[in-house]
Amino acid sequence: MKFVSYSQDGREGWGAVAGDGVVPLAERTGHASLADFIGSLDYARRDALVQGLKPEIPLAGLTYLPVIPRPEKIVCAVRNYMDHHQEVLAAGMHRELSQEPPIFLRVWRSQVGHEQAIVRPRVSETLDWEGELAVIIGKPGRDIPEARAYEHVAGYSIYNDVSVREWQFHAKQIASGKNFEGTGPFGPWMVTADEIPANQPLRLATRINGETVQESHTGHMIFSTAKLIAYASTIFTLVPGDVIATGTPAGVGWSRKPPRYLKPGDVVEVEIEKIGVLRNPVIQQA
Amino acid sequence: MKFVSYSQDGREGWGAVAGDGVVPLAERTGHASLADFIGSLDYARRDALVQGLKPEIPLAGLTYLPVIPRPEKIVCAVRNYMDHHQEVLAAGMHRELSQEPPIFLRVWRSQVGHEQAIVRPRVSETLDWEGELAVIIGKPGRDIPEARAYEHVAGYSIYNDVSVREWQFHAKQIASGKNFEGTGPFGPWMVTADEIPANQPLRLATRINGETVQESHTGHMIFSTAKLIAYASTIFTLVPGDVIATGTPAGVGWSRKPPRYLKPGDVVEVEIEKIGVLRNPVIQQA
Repeated sequence: MKFVSYSQDGREGWGAVAGDGVVPLAERTGHASLADFIGSLDYARRDALVQGLKPEIPLAGLTYLPVIPRPEKIVCAVRNYMDHHQEVLAAGMHRELSQEPPIFLRVWRSQVGHEQAIVRPRVSETLDWEGELAVIIGKPGRDIPEARAYEHVAGYSIYNDVSVREWQFHAKQIASGKNFEGTGPFGPWMVTADEIPANQPLRLATRINGETVQESHTGHMIFSTAKLIAYASTIFTLVPGDVIATGTPAGVGWSRKPPRYLKPGDVVEVEIEKIGVLRNPVIQQA
Repeated sequence: MKFVSYSQDGREGWGAVAGDGVVPLAERTGHASLADFIGSLDYARRDALVQGLKPEIPLAGLTYLPVIPRPEKIVCAVRNYMDHHQEVLAAGMHRELSQEPPIFLRVWRSQVGHEQAIVRPRVSETLDWEGELAVIIGKPGRDIPEARAYEHVAGYSIYNDVSVREWQFHAKQIASGKNFEGTGPFGPWMVTADEIPANQPLRLATRINGETVQESHTGHMIFSTAKLIAYASTIFTLVPGDVIATGTPAGVGWSRKPPRYLKPGDVVEVEIEKIGVLRNPVIQQA
Protein backbone atom coordinates (compact mmCIF):
# COMPACT_ATOMS: atom_id res chain seq x y z
CA MET A 1 0.00 0.00 0.00
CA LYS A 2 0.94 3.60 -0.48
CA PHE A 3 0.18 6.39 1.97
CA VAL A 4 0.39 10.06 1.14
CA SER A 5 0.17 13.35 3.06
CA TYR A 6 -1.42 16.33 1.36
CA SER A 7 -2.94 19.74 1.85
CA GLN A 8 -6.49 20.55 0.81
CA ASP A 9 -8.25 23.85 1.40
CA GLY A 10 -5.46 24.82 3.78
CA ARG A 11 -5.88 21.72 5.92
CA GLU A 12 -3.51 18.82 6.26
CA GLY A 13 -4.76 15.40 5.30
CA TRP A 14 -3.40 11.96 4.63
CA GLY A 15 -4.70 8.85 3.03
CA ALA A 16 -4.14 5.73 0.97
CA VAL A 17 -3.33 5.91 -2.72
CA ALA A 18 -5.83 3.85 -4.72
CA GLY A 19 -5.56 3.90 -8.50
CA ASP A 20 -5.28 7.52 -9.58
CA GLY A 21 -6.69 8.97 -6.41
CA VAL A 22 -6.54 9.13 -2.62
CA VAL A 23 -8.83 7.66 0.03
CA PRO A 24 -8.71 10.22 2.87
CA LEU A 25 -8.11 8.52 6.20
CA ALA A 26 -7.61 11.20 8.86
CA GLU A 27 -11.27 11.42 9.86
CA ARG A 28 -12.02 7.77 9.18
CA THR A 29 -9.28 6.58 11.50
CA GLY A 30 -9.21 9.41 14.02
CA HIS A 31 -5.47 9.74 13.46
CA ALA A 32 -4.69 13.32 12.49
CA SER A 33 -1.40 12.47 10.82
CA LEU A 34 0.24 9.59 8.99
CA ALA A 35 2.95 9.52 11.69
CA ASP A 36 0.27 9.03 14.33
CA PHE A 37 -1.42 6.30 12.29
CA ILE A 38 1.67 4.20 11.57
CA GLY A 39 2.39 3.95 15.27
CA SER A 40 -1.13 2.74 16.06
CA LEU A 41 -2.83 -0.63 16.26
CA ASP A 42 -5.02 0.41 13.31
CA TYR A 43 -1.95 0.30 11.15
CA ALA A 44 -1.79 -3.48 11.41
CA ARG A 45 -5.24 -3.76 9.81
CA ARG A 46 -4.60 -1.12 7.17
CA ASP A 47 -5.85 -3.28 4.29
CA ALA A 48 -9.23 -3.74 5.92
CA LEU A 49 -9.51 0.01 6.54
CA VAL A 50 -9.71 0.89 2.88
CA GLN A 51 -11.60 -2.18 1.66
CA GLY A 52 -14.53 -1.16 -0.51
CA LEU A 53 -13.63 2.54 -0.36
CA LYS A 54 -13.17 4.58 -3.49
CA PRO A 55 -10.62 7.33 -4.01
CA GLU A 56 -12.16 10.74 -3.38
CA ILE A 57 -9.29 13.07 -4.35
CA PRO A 58 -7.50 12.73 -7.69
CA LEU A 59 -3.70 12.52 -7.56
CA ALA A 60 -3.59 14.93 -10.48
CA GLY A 61 -3.47 18.37 -8.95
CA LEU A 62 -2.93 17.08 -5.41
CA THR A 63 -0.91 19.43 -3.18
CA TYR A 64 1.58 16.95 -1.77
CA LEU A 65 3.12 17.50 1.63
CA PRO A 66 6.31 15.82 2.80
CA VAL A 67 5.26 12.20 3.48
CA ILE A 68 5.77 12.88 7.17
CA PRO A 69 5.40 16.67 7.42
CA ARG A 70 7.00 17.05 10.86
CA PRO A 71 9.10 14.03 11.81
CA GLU A 72 10.41 14.19 15.35
CA LYS A 73 13.81 13.27 13.93
CA ILE A 74 15.36 13.16 10.49
CA VAL A 75 18.61 11.21 10.73
CA CYS A 76 20.77 11.48 7.62
CA ALA A 77 23.66 9.22 6.71
CA VAL A 78 26.75 10.83 5.17
CA ARG A 79 29.22 9.12 2.87
CA ASN A 80 27.18 5.93 2.82
CA TYR A 81 27.68 4.74 -0.76
CA MET A 82 31.00 3.28 -1.84
CA ASP A 83 30.66 4.83 -5.33
CA HIS A 84 29.98 8.27 -3.81
CA HIS A 85 32.90 7.86 -1.41
CA GLN A 86 35.15 7.19 -4.41
CA GLU A 87 33.97 10.26 -6.33
CA VAL A 88 34.55 12.45 -3.29
CA LEU A 89 38.11 11.11 -3.01
CA ALA A 90 38.60 11.70 -6.75
CA ALA A 91 37.44 15.30 -6.27
CA GLY A 92 40.34 15.80 -3.90
CA MET A 93 38.54 15.68 -0.55
CA HIS A 94 40.36 13.10 1.47
CA ARG A 95 38.32 11.28 4.02
CA GLU A 96 38.70 7.93 5.66
CA LEU A 97 35.65 5.78 5.92
CA SER A 98 34.32 5.70 9.46
CA GLN A 99 33.91 2.46 11.33
CA GLU A 100 30.50 3.63 12.46
CA PRO A 101 27.81 5.41 10.41
CA PRO A 102 28.46 9.15 10.09
CA ILE A 103 25.18 10.93 10.68
CA PHE A 104 23.80 14.44 10.87
CA LEU A 105 20.34 15.78 11.58
CA ARG A 106 17.91 17.67 9.39
CA VAL A 107 15.04 19.82 10.73
CA TRP A 108 11.50 19.24 9.46
CA ARG A 109 11.21 22.87 8.48
CA SER A 110 13.62 22.21 5.60
CA GLN A 111 11.22 19.71 4.00
CA VAL A 112 8.99 20.08 0.95
CA GLY A 113 6.52 17.70 -0.67
CA HIS A 114 6.51 16.11 -4.11
CA GLU A 115 6.07 18.71 -6.85
CA GLN A 116 6.73 21.55 -4.40
CA ALA A 117 9.64 23.89 -5.09
CA ILE A 118 13.24 23.42 -4.04
CA VAL A 119 14.43 26.91 -3.07
CA ARG A 120 17.88 28.18 -4.07
CA PRO A 121 18.83 30.59 -1.27
CA ARG A 122 20.03 34.11 -1.93
CA VAL A 123 23.35 33.44 -0.20
CA SER A 124 24.74 30.77 -2.51
CA GLU A 125 24.40 29.27 -5.98
CA THR A 126 25.99 25.97 -4.96
CA LEU A 127 22.73 24.03 -4.73
CA ASP A 128 23.25 20.32 -5.28
CA TRP A 129 21.09 17.18 -5.50
CA GLU A 130 21.36 13.95 -3.49
CA GLY A 131 18.82 11.23 -4.28
CA GLU A 132 18.31 8.89 -1.32
CA LEU A 133 16.20 6.04 -0.03
CA ALA A 134 14.16 7.18 3.00
CA VAL A 135 13.22 4.71 5.73
CA ILE A 136 10.19 5.57 7.87
CA ILE A 137 9.96 4.16 11.37
CA GLY A 138 6.70 2.56 12.48
CA LYS A 139 7.33 0.73 15.74
CA PRO A 140 9.13 2.70 18.45
CA GLY A 141 12.30 1.36 19.98
CA ARG A 142 15.60 2.03 21.73
CA ASP A 143 18.74 -0.10 21.48
CA ILE A 144 17.24 -2.06 18.61
CA PRO A 145 19.47 -4.98 17.56
CA GLU A 146 20.34 -5.08 13.84
CA ALA A 147 18.68 -8.46 13.51
CA ARG A 148 15.32 -6.97 14.53
CA ALA A 149 15.68 -3.58 12.84
CA TYR A 150 13.28 -4.28 9.98
CA GLU A 151 10.45 -4.92 12.44
CA HIS A 152 10.60 -1.18 13.16
CA VAL A 153 10.24 -0.06 9.54
CA ALA A 154 6.77 1.10 8.49
CA GLY A 155 7.79 1.78 4.92
CA TYR A 156 10.00 3.49 2.39
CA SER A 157 10.00 6.69 0.47
CA ILE A 158 12.39 8.98 -1.42
CA TYR A 159 14.44 11.85 -0.05
CA ASN A 160 16.35 14.45 -2.01
CA ASP A 161 18.95 15.66 0.49
CA VAL A 162 19.50 18.93 -1.39
CA SER A 163 22.64 20.65 -0.14
CA VAL A 164 24.02 24.17 -0.22
CA ARG A 165 27.65 23.14 -0.69
CA GLU A 166 29.33 26.42 0.23
CA TRP A 167 27.52 26.43 3.56
CA GLN A 168 28.03 22.71 4.06
CA PHE A 169 31.77 23.32 3.88
CA HIS A 170 31.85 26.34 6.19
CA ALA A 171 33.03 23.99 8.90
CA LYS A 172 33.51 20.28 9.54
CA GLN A 173 29.94 20.14 10.78
CA ILE A 174 27.77 20.05 7.65
CA ALA A 175 24.37 20.75 9.22
CA SER A 176 24.29 24.37 8.05
CA GLY A 177 24.39 23.43 4.36
CA LYS A 178 21.91 20.61 4.84
CA ASN A 179 19.04 22.45 6.46
CA PHE A 180 18.04 25.39 4.29
CA GLU A 181 14.32 25.87 4.05
CA GLY A 182 12.99 24.35 0.85
CA THR A 183 15.82 21.84 0.42
CA GLY A 184 14.32 18.61 1.75
CA PRO A 185 12.00 17.05 -0.86
CA PHE A 186 10.42 13.96 0.68
CA GLY A 187 7.87 11.88 -1.18
CA PRO A 188 5.81 11.32 -3.14
CA TRP A 189 4.42 8.71 -0.74
CA MET A 190 5.34 5.93 1.63
CA VAL A 191 5.28 2.37 0.27
CA THR A 192 4.59 -0.04 3.13
CA ALA A 193 7.43 -2.34 4.10
CA ASP A 194 5.56 -5.52 3.16
CA GLU A 195 5.99 -4.58 -0.52
CA ILE A 196 9.79 -4.27 -0.39
CA PRO A 197 11.80 -7.21 0.94
CA ALA A 198 14.36 -6.26 3.59
CA ASN A 199 17.77 -5.47 2.14
CA GLN A 200 16.66 -5.85 -1.48
CA PRO A 201 18.87 -3.65 -3.68
CA LEU A 202 16.68 -1.02 -5.33
CA ARG A 203 17.70 0.89 -8.44
CA LEU A 204 18.00 4.61 -7.79
CA ALA A 205 18.30 7.34 -10.41
CA THR A 206 18.37 11.13 -10.25
CA ARG A 207 17.57 13.21 -13.31
CA ILE A 208 17.95 16.93 -14.01
CA ASN A 209 15.58 18.07 -16.73
CA GLY A 210 15.39 14.47 -17.92
CA GLU A 211 19.16 13.89 -17.99
CA THR A 212 20.33 11.11 -15.70
CA VAL A 213 22.95 12.33 -13.20
CA GLN A 214 22.87 9.59 -10.57
CA GLU A 215 22.33 5.92 -11.35
CA SER A 216 23.11 3.33 -8.74
CA HIS A 217 21.36 0.95 -6.42
CA THR A 218 20.95 0.70 -2.68
CA GLY A 219 23.16 -2.42 -2.62
CA HIS A 220 26.10 0.01 -2.72
CA MET A 221 25.27 1.27 0.75
CA ILE A 222 28.19 0.95 3.17
CA PHE A 223 26.07 0.85 6.31
CA SER A 224 22.83 -1.09 5.80
CA THR A 225 19.39 0.16 6.74
CA ALA A 226 19.47 -2.29 9.66
CA LYS A 227 22.81 -0.95 10.88
CA LEU A 228 21.60 2.66 10.62
CA ILE A 229 18.48 1.85 12.65
CA ALA A 230 20.50 0.00 15.30
CA TYR A 231 23.04 2.83 15.52
CA ALA A 232 20.49 5.65 15.74
CA SER A 233 18.39 3.78 18.29
CA THR A 234 21.42 3.41 20.55
CA ILE A 235 21.43 7.20 20.79
CA PHE A 236 17.72 7.83 21.24
CA THR A 237 14.33 6.19 21.06
CA LEU A 238 13.10 6.01 17.50
CA VAL A 239 9.41 6.86 17.27
CA PRO A 240 6.73 6.45 14.60
CA GLY A 241 7.33 8.90 11.75
CA ASP A 242 11.05 9.25 12.35
CA VAL A 243 12.95 9.26 9.09
CA ILE A 244 16.32 7.83 8.18
CA ALA A 245 17.75 9.22 4.94
CA THR A 246 20.25 6.55 3.99
CA GLY A 247 22.79 8.55 1.98
CA THR A 248 23.39 9.24 -1.70
CA PRO A 249 25.30 7.35 -4.41
CA ALA A 250 27.81 8.78 -6.88
CA GLY A 251 26.84 11.52 -9.31
CA VAL A 252 26.35 14.66 -7.24
CA GLY A 253 27.12 18.04 -8.79
CA TRP A 254 29.95 19.52 -6.76
CA SER A 255 32.42 16.68 -7.41
CA ARG A 256 32.13 17.15 -11.20
CA LYS A 257 34.75 19.03 -13.17
CA PRO A 258 33.55 21.68 -13.53
CA PRO A 259 30.95 21.45 -10.75
CA ARG A 260 27.32 21.52 -11.81
CA TYR A 261 24.65 23.08 -9.62
CA LEU A 262 20.88 23.38 -9.64
CA LYS A 263 19.47 26.62 -10.98
CA PRO A 264 16.01 28.14 -11.03
CA GLY A 265 13.88 26.48 -13.71
CA ASP A 266 15.55 23.07 -13.35
CA VAL A 267 13.36 20.10 -12.54
CA VAL A 268 14.91 17.36 -10.39
CA GLU A 269 13.54 13.84 -10.29
CA VAL A 270 14.66 11.04 -8.00
CA GLU A 271 13.31 7.64 -8.94
CA ILE A 272 13.61 4.53 -6.80
CA GLU A 273 12.45 1.13 -7.94
CA LYS A 274 9.22 -0.07 -6.31
CA ILE A 275 8.60 3.37 -4.81
CA GLY A 276 8.13 5.93 -7.58
CA VAL A 277 9.38 9.32 -8.71
CA LEU A 278 9.93 12.39 -6.51
CA ARG A 279 9.83 15.47 -8.74
CA ASN A 280 10.60 19.07 -7.75
CA PRO A 281 11.17 22.27 -9.69
CA VAL A 282 13.84 24.71 -8.50
CA ILE A 283 13.05 28.36 -7.78
CA GLN A 284 15.06 31.27 -6.46
CA GLN A 285 14.50 32.54 -2.89
CA ALA A 286 12.40 35.68 -3.17
CA MET B 1 11.08 37.80 35.10
CA LYS B 2 11.71 34.09 35.18
CA PHE B 3 9.57 31.48 33.46
CA VAL B 4 9.72 27.79 34.18
CA SER B 5 8.25 24.60 32.69
CA TYR B 6 7.32 21.78 35.01
CA SER B 7 5.35 18.59 35.38
CA GLN B 8 2.63 18.15 37.99
CA ASP B 9 0.44 15.10 38.42
CA GLY B 10 1.65 13.88 35.04
CA ARG B 11 0.63 17.07 33.24
CA GLU B 12 2.89 19.69 31.74
CA GLY B 13 2.64 23.19 33.06
CA TRP B 14 4.55 26.44 32.93
CA GLY B 15 4.50 29.63 34.88
CA ALA B 16 6.32 32.61 36.33
CA VAL B 17 8.74 32.22 39.21
CA ALA B 18 7.74 34.49 42.10
CA GLY B 19 9.74 34.30 45.32
CA ASP B 20 10.06 30.65 46.24
CA GLY B 21 7.17 29.46 44.13
CA VAL B 22 5.51 29.39 40.73
CA VAL B 23 2.44 31.20 39.42
CA PRO B 24 0.92 28.71 36.94
CA LEU B 25 0.08 30.44 33.66
CA ALA B 26 -1.04 27.81 31.16
CA GLU B 27 -4.72 28.03 32.00
CA ARG B 28 -4.66 31.71 32.84
CA THR B 29 -3.18 32.65 29.46
CA GLY B 30 -4.65 29.91 27.30
CA HIS B 31 -1.14 29.14 26.06
CA ALA B 32 -0.42 25.47 26.62
CA SER B 33 3.35 25.88 26.55
CA LEU B 34 5.98 28.50 27.31
CA ALA B 35 7.10 28.34 23.65
CA ASP B 36 3.56 29.20 22.57
CA PHE B 37 3.36 32.05 25.08
CA ILE B 38 6.63 33.75 24.24
CA GLY B 39 5.57 34.04 20.60
CA SER B 40 2.24 35.68 21.52
CA LEU B 41 1.06 39.22 22.06
CA ASP B 42 0.40 38.35 25.70
CA TYR B 43 4.14 38.05 26.17
CA ALA B 44 4.57 41.80 25.78
CA ARG B 45 2.32 42.42 28.78
CA ARG B 46 3.82 39.65 30.90
CA ASP B 47 4.31 41.84 33.95
CA ALA B 48 0.62 42.74 34.08
CA LEU B 49 -0.33 39.07 33.79
CA VAL B 50 1.10 38.12 37.13
CA GLN B 51 0.38 41.33 39.02
CA GLY B 52 -1.28 40.60 42.33
CA LEU B 53 -1.01 36.83 41.88
CA LYS B 54 0.63 34.66 44.48
CA PRO B 55 2.80 31.61 43.81
CA GLU B 56 0.77 28.42 44.08
CA ILE B 57 3.45 25.76 43.64
CA PRO B 58 6.62 25.78 45.75
CA LEU B 59 9.92 25.57 43.85
CA ALA B 60 11.10 23.09 46.47
CA GLY B 61 10.11 19.69 45.14
CA LEU B 62 9.07 21.01 41.73
CA THR B 63 9.53 18.52 38.88
CA TYR B 64 11.33 20.74 36.41
CA LEU B 65 11.02 20.11 32.69
CA PRO B 66 13.48 21.44 30.12
CA VAL B 67 12.65 25.18 29.91
CA ILE B 68 11.29 24.54 26.43
CA PRO B 69 10.41 20.85 26.50
CA ARG B 70 10.17 20.36 22.72
CA PRO B 71 11.90 23.16 20.80
CA GLU B 72 11.37 22.94 17.08
CA LYS B 73 15.12 23.42 16.70
CA ILE B 74 18.11 23.25 19.02
CA VAL B 75 21.06 24.82 17.23
CA CYS B 76 24.38 24.23 18.98
CA ALA B 77 27.61 26.10 18.35
CA VAL B 78 30.85 24.10 18.32
CA ARG B 79 34.28 25.47 19.16
CA ASN B 80 32.89 28.85 20.05
CA TYR B 81 35.14 29.88 22.96
CA MET B 82 38.71 30.92 22.33
CA ASP B 83 39.87 29.31 25.59
CA HIS B 84 38.17 26.01 24.68
CA HIS B 85 39.65 26.15 21.18
CA GLN B 86 43.10 26.47 22.75
CA GLU B 87 42.61 23.53 25.09
CA VAL B 88 41.46 21.37 22.19
CA LEU B 89 44.59 22.27 20.26
CA ALA B 90 46.68 21.52 23.33
CA ALA B 91 45.04 18.10 23.57
CA GLY B 92 46.41 17.35 20.11
CA MET B 93 43.28 17.75 18.00
CA HIS B 94 44.23 20.18 15.29
CA ARG B 95 41.44 22.31 13.94
CA GLU B 96 41.42 25.63 12.22
CA LEU B 97 38.88 28.12 13.35
CA SER B 98 36.05 28.43 10.84
CA GLN B 99 35.21 31.76 9.28
CA GLU B 100 31.55 31.04 9.92
CA PRO B 101 29.97 29.53 13.04
CA PRO B 102 30.24 25.73 13.13
CA ILE B 103 26.88 24.35 14.20
CA PHE B 104 25.18 21.04 14.77
CA LEU B 105 21.67 20.11 15.81
CA ARG B 106 20.33 18.46 18.93
CA VAL B 107 16.95 16.69 19.16
CA TRP B 108 14.53 17.63 21.92
CA ARG B 109 14.30 14.01 23.02
CA SER B 110 17.83 14.33 24.40
CA GLN B 111 16.76 17.05 26.87
CA VAL B 112 16.19 16.87 30.63
CA GLY B 113 15.06 19.47 33.13
CA HIS B 114 16.84 20.94 36.13
CA GLU B 115 17.45 18.32 38.82
CA GLN B 116 16.55 15.49 36.45
CA ALA B 117 19.16 12.82 35.76
CA ILE B 118 21.86 12.90 33.14
CA VAL B 119 22.06 9.33 31.84
CA ARG B 120 25.40 7.67 31.12
CA PRO B 121 24.64 5.24 28.30
CA ARG B 122 25.58 1.57 28.40
CA VAL B 123 27.77 1.91 25.31
CA SER B 124 30.38 4.34 26.63
CA GLU B 125 31.87 5.76 29.79
CA THR B 126 33.19 8.90 28.07
CA LEU B 127 30.43 11.18 29.32
CA ASP B 128 31.58 14.81 29.47
CA TRP B 129 30.16 18.15 30.57
CA GLU B 130 29.82 21.39 28.58
CA GLY B 131 28.25 24.36 30.39
CA GLU B 132 26.70 26.83 27.95
CA LEU B 133 24.58 29.94 27.72
CA ALA B 134 21.26 29.12 26.02
CA VAL B 135 19.43 31.76 23.99
CA ILE B 136 15.68 31.32 23.54
CA ILE B 137 14.00 32.84 20.50
CA GLY B 138 10.81 34.84 21.00
CA LYS B 139 10.04 36.69 17.79
CA PRO B 140 10.12 34.60 14.59
CA GLY B 141 12.36 35.62 11.71
CA ARG B 142 14.33 34.61 8.66
CA ASP B 143 17.45 36.34 7.34
CA ILE B 144 17.73 38.38 10.54
CA PRO B 145 20.51 40.99 10.34
CA GLU B 146 23.02 40.88 13.20
CA ALA B 147 22.10 44.43 14.17
CA ARG B 148 18.52 43.36 14.90
CA ALA B 149 19.23 39.93 16.31
CA TYR B 150 18.53 40.81 19.95
CA GLU B 151 14.98 41.84 19.08
CA HIS B 152 14.35 38.13 18.48
CA VAL B 153 15.59 36.96 21.88
CA ALA B 154 12.92 36.18 24.47
CA GLY B 155 15.39 35.29 27.15
CA TYR B 156 18.32 33.27 28.40
CA SER B 157 18.85 30.01 30.19
CA ILE B 158 21.57 27.41 30.79
CA TYR B 159 22.39 24.36 28.71
CA ASN B 160 24.68 21.50 29.63
CA ASP B 161 25.64 20.08 26.25
CA VAL B 162 26.63 16.73 27.74
CA SER B 163 28.59 14.70 25.22
CA VAL B 164 29.44 11.04 24.75
CA ARG B 165 32.95 11.63 23.43
CA GLU B 166 33.62 8.21 21.92
CA TRP B 167 30.47 8.49 19.83
CA GLN B 168 31.10 12.15 19.05
CA PHE B 169 34.41 11.10 17.49
CA HIS B 170 33.03 8.15 15.49
CA ALA B 171 33.08 10.44 12.45
CA LYS B 172 33.63 14.07 11.55
CA GLN B 173 29.95 14.66 12.16
CA ILE B 174 29.52 14.90 15.92
CA ALA B 175 25.72 14.65 16.13
CA SER B 176 25.79 11.04 17.31
CA GLY B 177 27.70 11.85 20.50
CA LYS B 178 25.63 14.96 21.16
CA ASN B 179 22.15 13.49 21.13
CA PHE B 180 21.95 10.64 23.59
CA GLU B 181 18.75 10.56 25.57
CA GLY B 182 19.25 12.15 28.96
CA THR B 183 22.23 14.29 27.95
CA GLY B 184 20.67 17.72 27.38
CA PRO B 185 20.03 19.47 30.73
CA PHE B 186 18.27 22.76 30.02
CA GLY B 187 17.16 25.06 32.81
CA PRO B 188 16.33 25.80 35.47
CA TRP B 189 14.28 28.60 33.92
CA MET B 190 14.30 31.36 31.32
CA VAL B 191 15.30 34.84 32.45
CA THR B 192 13.65 37.40 30.19
CA ALA B 193 15.94 39.39 27.92
CA ASP B 194 15.11 42.74 29.55
CA GLU B 195 17.09 41.63 32.62
CA ILE B 196 20.32 40.90 30.73
CA PRO B 197 21.81 43.63 28.55
CA ALA B 198 22.72 42.50 25.03
CA ASN B 199 26.28 41.26 24.74
CA GLN B 200 27.03 41.64 28.43
CA PRO B 201 29.75 39.16 29.41
CA LEU B 202 28.31 36.74 31.96
CA ARG B 203 30.43 34.65 34.29
CA LEU B 204 29.97 30.92 33.69
CA ALA B 205 31.14 28.11 35.93
CA THR B 206 30.69 24.35 35.88
CA ARG B 207 31.17 22.28 39.02
CA ILE B 208 31.40 18.53 39.55
CA ASN B 209 30.49 17.58 43.11
CA GLY B 210 31.29 21.14 44.13
CA GLU B 211 34.69 21.29 42.42
CA THR B 212 34.96 23.98 39.76
CA VAL B 213 35.95 22.53 36.37
CA GLN B 214 34.96 25.35 34.01
CA GLU B 215 35.28 29.02 34.83
CA SER B 216 35.04 31.59 32.09
CA HIS B 217 32.68 34.21 30.79
CA THR B 218 30.61 34.63 27.67
CA GLY B 219 32.87 37.44 26.49
CA HIS B 220 35.23 34.70 25.28
CA MET B 221 32.73 33.66 22.64
CA ILE B 222 34.20 33.70 19.12
CA PHE B 223 30.87 34.15 17.35
CA SER B 224 28.50 36.41 19.26
CA THR B 225 24.89 35.60 20.07
CA ALA B 226 23.88 38.10 17.38
CA LYS B 227 26.08 36.41 14.77
CA LEU B 228 24.74 32.97 15.69
CA ILE B 229 21.15 34.19 15.32
CA ALA B 230 21.88 35.87 11.99
CA TYR B 231 23.68 32.79 10.69
CA ALA B 232 21.03 30.29 11.76
CA SER B 233 18.20 32.45 10.44
CA THR B 234 19.83 32.54 7.01
CA ILE B 235 19.30 28.78 6.91
CA PHE B 236 15.77 28.58 8.27
CA THR B 237 13.07 30.62 9.96
CA LEU B 238 13.68 30.83 13.69
CA VAL B 239 10.46 30.38 15.64
CA PRO B 240 9.42 31.03 19.24
CA GLY B 241 10.96 28.45 21.53
CA ASP B 242 13.91 27.69 19.27
CA VAL B 243 17.10 27.37 21.28
CA ILE B 244 20.64 28.36 20.46
CA ALA B 245 23.26 26.74 22.69
CA THR B 246 26.20 29.07 22.29
CA GLY B 247 29.13 26.74 22.92
CA THR B 248 31.29 25.88 25.91
CA PRO B 249 34.46 27.45 27.35
CA ALA B 250 37.65 25.67 28.40
CA GLY B 251 37.61 23.00 31.08
CA VAL B 252 35.84 20.01 29.58
CA GLY B 253 36.85 16.53 30.68
CA TRP B 254 38.23 14.77 27.62
CA SER B 255 41.02 17.28 26.96
CA ARG B 256 42.48 16.76 30.46
CA LYS B 257 45.47 14.54 31.05
CA PRO B 258 44.30 12.04 31.99
CA PRO B 259 40.75 12.64 30.73
CA ARG B 260 38.05 12.94 33.35
CA TYR B 261 34.52 11.78 32.72
CA LEU B 262 31.19 11.92 34.51
CA LYS B 263 30.20 8.84 36.43
CA PRO B 264 27.02 7.71 38.15
CA GLY B 265 26.61 9.51 41.45
CA ASP B 266 28.29 12.72 40.27
CA VAL B 267 26.35 15.95 40.49
CA VAL B 268 26.99 18.56 37.79
CA GLU B 269 26.18 22.22 38.25
CA VAL B 270 26.39 24.93 35.62
CA GLU B 271 26.05 28.44 36.98
CA ILE B 272 25.67 31.55 34.86
CA GLU B 273 25.57 35.05 36.32
CA LYS B 274 22.12 36.64 36.36
CA ILE B 275 20.48 33.32 35.40
CA GLY B 276 21.07 30.76 38.13
CA VAL B 277 22.30 27.22 38.65
CA LEU B 278 21.40 24.17 36.56
CA ARG B 279 22.00 21.06 38.64
CA ASN B 280 21.79 17.43 37.52
CA PRO B 281 22.83 14.13 39.06
CA VAL B 282 24.34 11.43 36.84
CA ILE B 283 22.88 7.94 36.67
CA GLN B 284 23.69 4.83 34.66
CA GLN B 285 21.39 3.76 31.82
CA ALA B 286 19.32 0.84 33.15
